[in-house]
Amino acid sequence: MKMRVEIEFCMQCHWLLRAAWMAQELIGTFPDDLAEVALKPGSGGVFRVRVGDQLIVDRKRDGGFPDLTALKRKVRDCVDPERSLGHIDRGD
Amino acid sequence: MKMRVEIEFCMQCHWLLRAAWMAQELIGTFPDDLAEVALKPGSGGVFRVRVGDQLIVDRKRDGGFPDLTALKRKVRDCVDPERSLGHIDRGD
Repeated sequence: MKMRVEIEFCMQCHWLLRAAWMAQELIGTFPDDLAEVALKPGSGGVFRVRVGDQLIVDRKRDGGFPDLTALKRKVRDCVDPERSLGHIDRGD
Repeated sequence: MKMRVEIEFCMQCHWLLRAAWMAQELIGTFPDDLAEVALKPGSGGVFRVRVGDQLIVDRKRDGGFPDLTALKRKVRDCVDPERSLGHIDRGD
């Protein structure tokens, strides 16, 4: 079953571009696994990523933003834990 | 009630960037009216935009892509028909 990703971001913090960039990267990396990636405007410094019901990123909880590599690993762990992400997993 | 927008686009046609650009433009113009804008990868030359259940753009039905001004007008007509979009409505 294809999964939904939701990226909730603070508009006042001007994180729209960051969120949209991450959305594009995730769709490009997981085109057959994601039903959709939703950009959800929020406020109050929120930056959260959910895969299905699972909260994989929370800026406040995690103490900062994930880098893109870490984000892709987390999404991969939700959609297909066995899959290799190539250079992302090798770190080259 | 805030509305959901869905942009369904053909991955094989490389319309991800176009869809993500439109998503950002819509969130920037209607930050308080949209619950979310979802990017939905599709195939077969599909390019559709829905506001709630309403299909406001269908590339095949409409004979092409909407320009951004027309798209914003259509979204405005769904979320708040009385609102002026300023220079978009004046055409200046």
